[in-house]
Amino acid sequence: MTDDDFKTVLNRYATRFNQEIDRFFPFPEGEEKRVAQAMHYSLTRGGKRLRPYLVFETAALFGVTFEQSLNTAMALEMLHTYSLIHDDLPAMDDDDRRRGFPTCHKQFDEATAIIAGDGLLTYAFEIMSRPATTPNPAVRCYLIEMLANAAGAFNGMVAGQMLDLICAAYSSGRRDTEELIKHIEEMKTGRLLRYAVEAGAVLGGATEQELRALLAYARRIGIAFQITDDILDVTGDERTMGKTLHKDEKQNKFTFVSLYGLDTARRIARELIAAARQDLEIFGDRAQNLKNLAAYIIERQH
Amino acid sequence: MTDDDFKTVLNRYATRFNQEIDRFFPFPEGEEKRVAQAMHYSLTRGGKRLRPYLVFETAALFGVTFEQSLNTAMALEMLHTYSLIHDDLPAMDDDDRRRGFPTCHKQFDEATAIIAGDGLLTYAFEIMSRPATTPNPAVRCYLIEMLANAAGAFNGMVAGQMLDLICAAYSSGRRDTEELIKHIEEMKTGRLLRYAVEAGAVLGGATEQELRALLAYARRIGIAFQITDDILDVTGDERTMGKTLHKDEKQNKFTFVSLYGLDTARRIARELIAAARQDLEIFGDRAQNLKNLAAYIIERQH
Repeated sequence: MTDDDFKTVLNRYATRFNQEIDRFFPFPEGEEKRVAQAMHYSLTRGGKRLRPYLVFETAALFGVTFEQSLNTAMALEMLHTYSLIHDDLPAMDDDDRRRGFPTCHKQFDEATAIIAGDGLLTYAFEIMSRPATTPNPAVRCYLIEMLANAAGAFNGMVAGQMLDLICAAYSSGRRDTEELIKHIEEMKTGRLLRYAVEAGAVLGGATEQELRALLAYARRIGIAFQITDDILDVTGDERTMGKTLHKDEKQNKFTFVSLYGLDTARRIARELIAAARQDLEIFGDRAQNLKNLAAYIIERQH
Repeated sequence: MTDDDFKTVLNRYATRFNQEIDRFFPFPEGEEKRVAQAMHYSLTRGGKRLRPYLVFETAALFGVTFEQSLNTAMALEMLHTYSLIHDDLPAMDDDDRRRGFPTCHKQFDEATAIIAGDGLLTYAFEIMSRPATTPNPAVRCYLIEMLANAAGAFNGMVAGQMLDLICAAYSSGRRDTEELIKHIEEMKTGRLLRYAVEAGAVLGGATEQELRALLAYARRIGIAFQITDDILDVTGDERTMGKTLHKDEKQNKFTFVSLYGLDTARRIARELIAAARQDLEIFGDRAQNLKNLAAYIIERQH
């Protein structure tokens, strides 16, 4: 399968996923629907749907269908979207555009964007709590606990966001290390990507050995994903990317590129992807799409 | 029991509740602990702990202990605190002080306050998902779904916040009605208060008749609570209240007071409380604290 073939596979999933979004939006009748509209707006401005696809494709290794993994995939994409809306706020990264569209606070207003993010985060947990997510309530509770922990303030996404803000503010007088960058990215991006794979494995009832292999895969593609983001921030095309570039540099952000330079960063990403593909050997051909996804992560142009 | 006696009961609960907070805060070692500190800061700046107390006292009707209702009470107070942090942000109500202390974005900074709110909201669901909340995972999922719905964007707290923002922005050219004000307050404040009582009833295994009585009580004290807030915004003492007053008027907010005047608003609140106490008759003396709480709600000075 060529890289283009895999893009078709990914796009087909995204199309199917996107068709389900409206079913999750019971717009109220009153004017309060503005916040639901803002949530829906941000959720439907493009997006590769990588996290939902990871849930789906991992669960599919074990025979779980699209419908059976949909709630988990949708909740995760909502949670990811909330984090983008809040990251883009003037007090945070202050971004006007994302994926070629005005960011939520530009399209609506700042107050609406704040509560639209809150609404998506809250709704993600409501979706996860429902029987349609998976019939066994003990499994649902486990998935909810994992998701909240991965997204949370102690060693999850919110903690990563905090550390990133601190490092950007005080970087000039600091000596940051590979260790610190990895720690930030692990929390900011890695944990949700890993959750996608872990949740798929839990939905599928993976054995401990299978789960270990999948988690190793998820950890490696997570770092490779972030390295590629850092590379694209330097080398990417603003039109293809649909967002403002060279922001890392302007905001003094520590990245793999600022630490190692482009060539070494590219080599590390390639090595991680080769190892990630190796992790999946125990699944044989069934894991071909997940292997292709790993390759796609470092080859993508946006 | 006099009103002062009840205040002692409430304060005793608040003290016990406050002593448990630190147990829920595993501060990270790294600098990312700043966001956990901001969450902890806002959670420990006073607060009457009315919502946790409602959970506790309702569950106690059915023999549930302090420890057995603690996770639910703590999660609810965290969720309430997130809503205060985000409401106080410059893009929202732009408040510098709350309960006599600097608001989160004043004490820390705006970005930290945004993610501290996100962190508390996320952590509330993590706490609810744990077995310590209640042993039966199906009940935990039910409590999580109810909580997310009550706090959410479709007809919960976030929807109420949205409608409140819209009404404040466009009030001059509008003709708002009692219906609309009630709808806003029902979503903004009422649903979380009702959740407190409903969650206590679910933890206690209330019968359908008992649940109906408790929900009627909760609905009435919710409206009375908001009417009293509106009254205190006009008549209260800024030092006692610990926050800026007369904000409703300045922000053109529609309130029960602006609609009816002080005297009628006071009378409606009194009637609601009398009816709420009546709702609890089926529980006899066991419900004395909940009845006293109803009276306290309209007699409080802050």
